[in-house]
Amino acid sequence: MAIKTGNLGYGLPGRLPVELADALLVRPGLRIERIVSTGQVTPDGEWNYQSDDEFVILIRGAARLRIDGEHEDRDLAEGDWILLPAHCRHRVTWTQAEPPTVWLAIHVSPG
Amino acid sequence: MAIKTGNLGYGLPGRLPVELADALLVRPGLRIERIVSTGQVTPDGEWNYQSDDEFVILIRGAARLRIDGEHEDRDLAEGDWILLPAHCRHRVTWTQAEPPTVWLAIHVSPG
Repeated sequence: MAIKTGNLGYGLPGRLPVELADALLVRPGLRIERIVSTGQVTPDGEWNYQSDDEFVILIRGAARLRIDGEHEDRDLAEGDWILLPAHCRHRVTWTQAEPPTVWLAIHVSPG
Repeated sequence: MAIKTGNLGYGLPGRLPVELADALLVRPGLRIERIVSTGQVTPDGEWNYQSDDEFVILIRGAARLRIDGEHEDRDLAEGDWILLPAHCRHRVTWTQAEPPTVWLAIHVSPG
């Protein structure tokens, strides 16, 4: 039986021009991906949002996140998780560049 | 908007008589849970298996896993993930007790 394995810290780059996203498992209504950030943030004036719920875990490194309607950034440290509901507008305002910041994002179709 | 958050290292116990499992997100066909092991293993002569696929990540600590039909345990270190297909018989043969071992298990209905 072929068993798929990997490590979330595998092949971490030094510095990347853009975020790196690797899909680890894709199923109907579900996508699990590793995201590596080396300082990238959401561009000024833009928001991220998606039609899926997104369960995000900060695996390594550190980041700050702003949720639309909140008055302060949220600090994310190793082990922190947050469930971003579908259509929740949010911005990544800071990510630790060195060592790189590693996220696990689990995208789940709502309902 | 109520945003659910947490930390995978929250409230780690000293030593537990049994594994601790907390469901973080439950949806039709999906269950994400944190599991904390403080030395627990699968009892001698028993196997674990389930009707769901199980995507398991070793978040903190260390463990060893035996897959039925393989001749050696697999060592799991921090960041290692493994996709255990439904009905794949496996045994946890060792878990680091101190500091506790933390797993993230994502149970996905196959197909």
